[in-house]
Amino acid sequence: MITTDILIIGAGPTGLFAVFEAGLLKLKCHIIDALPQPGGQLSELYPKKPIFDIPGFPSVLAGELVDNLMEQIKQFQPGFTLNEKAETIDKLEDGTFIVTTNKGTKHHAKAVAIAGGLGSFDPRKPLIDGIEFYEDKGVEYFVKNPELFRNKRIVIAGGGDSALDWSIFLADVASEVTLVHRRNEFRGALDSVEKVQELKKLGRISLITPAEVTAIHGKDKVEALEIDIEGEKSIIETDYFIPLFGLTPKLGAIAHWGLEIEKNAIKVNNALDYQTNIEGIYAIGDINTYPGKLKLILCGFHEATLMCQSVYNRLNPGKKYVLKYTTVSGVDGFDGTRKEAEKQVVKAIE
Amino acid sequence: MITTDILIIGAGPTGLFAVFEAGLLKLKCHIIDALPQPGGQLSELYPKKPIFDIPGFPSVLAGELVDNLMEQIKQFQPGFTLNEKAETIDKLEDGTFIVTTNKGTKHHAKAVAIAGGLGSFDPRKPLIDGIEFYEDKGVEYFVKNPELFRNKRIVIAGGGDSALDWSIFLADVASEVTLVHRRNEFRGALDSVEKVQELKKLGRISLITPAEVTAIHGKDKVEALEIDIEGEKSIIETDYFIPLFGLTPKLGAIAHWGLEIEKNAIKVNNALDYQTNIEGIYAIGDINTYPGKLKLILCGFHEATLMCQSVYNRLNPGKKYVLKYTTVSGVDGFDGTRKEAEKQVVKAIE
Ligand SMILES: Cc1cc2nc3c(=O)[nH]c(=O)nc-3n(C[C@H](O)[C@H](O)[C@H](O)COP(=O)(O)OP(=O)(O)OC[C@H]3O[C@@H](n4cnc5c(N)ncnc54)[C@H](O)[C@@H]3O)c2cc1C
Ligand SMILES: Cc1cc2nc3c(=O)[nH]c(=O)nc-3n(C[C@H](O)[C@H](O)[C@H](O)COP(=O)(O)OP(=O)(O)OC[C@H]3O[C@@H](n4cnc5c(N)ncnc54)[C@H](O)[C@@H]3O)c2cc1C
Repeated sequence: MITTDILIIGAGPTGLFAVFEAGLLKLKCHIIDALPQPGGQLSELYPKKPIFDIPGFPSVLAGELVDNLMEQIKQFQPGFTLNEKAETIDKLEDGTFIVTTNKGTKHHAKAVAIAGGLGSFDPRKPLIDGIEFYEDKGVEYFVKNPELFRNKRIVIAGGGDSALDWSIFLADVASEVTLVHRRNEFRGALDSVEKVQELKKLGRISLITPAEVTAIHGKDKVEALEIDIEGEKSIIETDYFIPLFGLTPKLGAIAHWGLEIEKNAIKVNNALDYQTNIEGIYAIGDINTYPGKLKLILCGFHEATLMCQSVYNRLNPGKKYVLKYTTVSGVDGFDGTRKEAEKQVVKAIE
Repeated sequence: MITTDILIIGAGPTGLFAVFEAGLLKLKCHIIDALPQPGGQLSELYPKKPIFDIPGFPSVLAGELVDNLMEQIKQFQPGFTLNEKAETIDKLEDGTFIVTTNKGTKHHAKAVAIAGGLGSFDPRKPLIDGIEFYEDKGVEYFVKNPELFRNKRIVIAGGGDSALDWSIFLADVASEVTLVHRRNEFRGALDSVEKVQELKKLGRISLITPAEVTAIHGKDKVEALEIDIEGEKSIIETDYFIPLFGLTPKLGAIAHWGLEIEKNAIKVNNALDYQTNIEGIYAIGDINTYPGKLKLILCGFHEATLMCQSVYNRLNPGKKYVLKYTTVSGVDGFDGTRKEAEKQVVKAIE
């Protein structure tokens, strides 16, 4: 059982920044995310694109912003349960919660902050009979750990950024990379398309287009794929099949937690602390809704901050909280490190 | 008469960022500030100190954050009325406003956003008889334009950061710099204290401590100061007297605009758009109050953003606003410049 003060569901920018604000209040956080890496939409959907409306950044790459947030919260040592989906929640008699993931991992927390964005990202699966049988047996919808493919033969399917970028990356890792796409044209950054072109010329990536993977063969695991090239079938031997057809966000199990839902989002009390209709459960960032709600990163930061204050007040009833400026009081990490402004001196001049 | 869409009172981080959000909605902004430079508390009180709780910045100097914000809003060409205090407001029959400053400058706007922080900063004045007569005639409470002091004799009074830092800076500008302080000890960054020590040794700054300026002499303007050095009076000739004894923020005239005030702050509707009890007047950032309010920079950013949306809806009744991501739609400045993410290509690989 993992125990923590605030359990955060969703490692997008909102969930990550909540760790920092909680830390200032000496509250520990643990984050669950269905994806293999933190950053939510920013890491998964547009890591190399610039964002122009983060206050103080005339321009920042989404991936950079995530790196910065990870650096900023490092001091507060958040725990992570990645690659797992929060599935059930139980409120105990003492007002605390147990959240269990699809893989059975249990988390015990004093408060729960749902920062689930548009929902947990589910891969769009190709319509291939029996593909479920091969999941985790050679079929991978995410590249969670590139080392899995070291010196293996892999087939990637898809025609967008992910398919291009992982083909490029894994050309240095796998023994053979084959990229299958149902059109001749790829859609992605010019850089990426050109790089794949180059690797193809060097024989490091094989391209099969326009084509589709239509069947999987193998006894206990993927051994070969059947590919339809303009009506002609052929068989290609491989160790892994990685279909990268994009993700669809799904509110999923959270929709059945007894929370008030409106337009696929969780209703919260925006006049106070972004708490849901269940005391102790908050919803922050893209996943919540209230009059005037804007699904913007900077709004999630504010919501996370007020949420943490509310949790603090809930856990410390009667204790008067005095806001401390980080500039004035510094930041004390749970890892023993301290950040602080240079001290002023009081000194005579001779 | 200056005309604009949103008149912003206060050029602190909240007011500055509001220009950006307004710009995205094609609304023009003009900012009034009592101080000579933008940045509010950050520029005036702690420009060289680090802030640790701006999302995405593990650490950023307050002055740097202001520079970044100025860079971010540049595209939207905000107008500035600096060194003037917003003093009166008139609501016209058509629902627009005229705001007039203490110097009589009139601003006509469709909406007013008060981002006045803790109020306009008034200098703490030394208790010297008749000092008001010499204001703008040799007595300066702010260094608005260092060039004013080029090759002049100046006397600075004070023992904190401002007194130290301006003495250092103006040692290169003025012909003579004298620093008067009522104690021997100065309170400031170690760097600054040491630098003054060094300049004193080089004869570039004269130090008079423990001492106090007790009278000003001069017919039409400052000609000399009377200084009390441990009970002994002496006279020192000078062109300028710059007392730097800190600032006190005052809500001032705004307190009489008919707005609901609570604890020296303006009550707003935080459940929607941070509007005050007067339609079309908003209060954002440190100057507003609502249940759970935190006087933090990041909260001002969120409030500014929702305020701009509300103004947009007010000015475009019935028009459905569709949120556009800056990453996806780019940012079109009023100056004709455009920021945008690199376009994706759709391209065949041979
Ligand atoms: C192409 C694009 C461009 C954008 N441009 C901008 C922009 O310029 N400016 C801007 O402000 N915003 C922009 N956005 C929106 C911005 O990305 C979102 O506002 C932001 O990501 C919301 O952050 P979040 O932390 O609330 O949620 P998310 O980033 O969506 O993260 C939520 C996380 O929660 C996880 N999760 C959800 N449910 C579960 C569960 N049950 N169990 C485990 N994990 C779960 C998900 O896997 C996900 O990682 C853009 C979005 C896109 C797609
Ligand atoms: C030493 C110190 C350290 C701090 N550290 C942090 C920190 O670590 N993190 C954090 O989030 N916050 C911190 N703060 C607080 C932060 O500075 C404020 O939250 C922030 O400045 C508020 O921004 P604002 O734009 O609302 O107002 P302000 O920055 O106060 O700006 C308001 C401006 O409005 C002007 N004004 C007011 N009334 C009028 C008028 N009638 N006419 C013309 N001009 C007017 C003022 O002159 C001023 O320039 C700190 C503050 C101090 C003093």
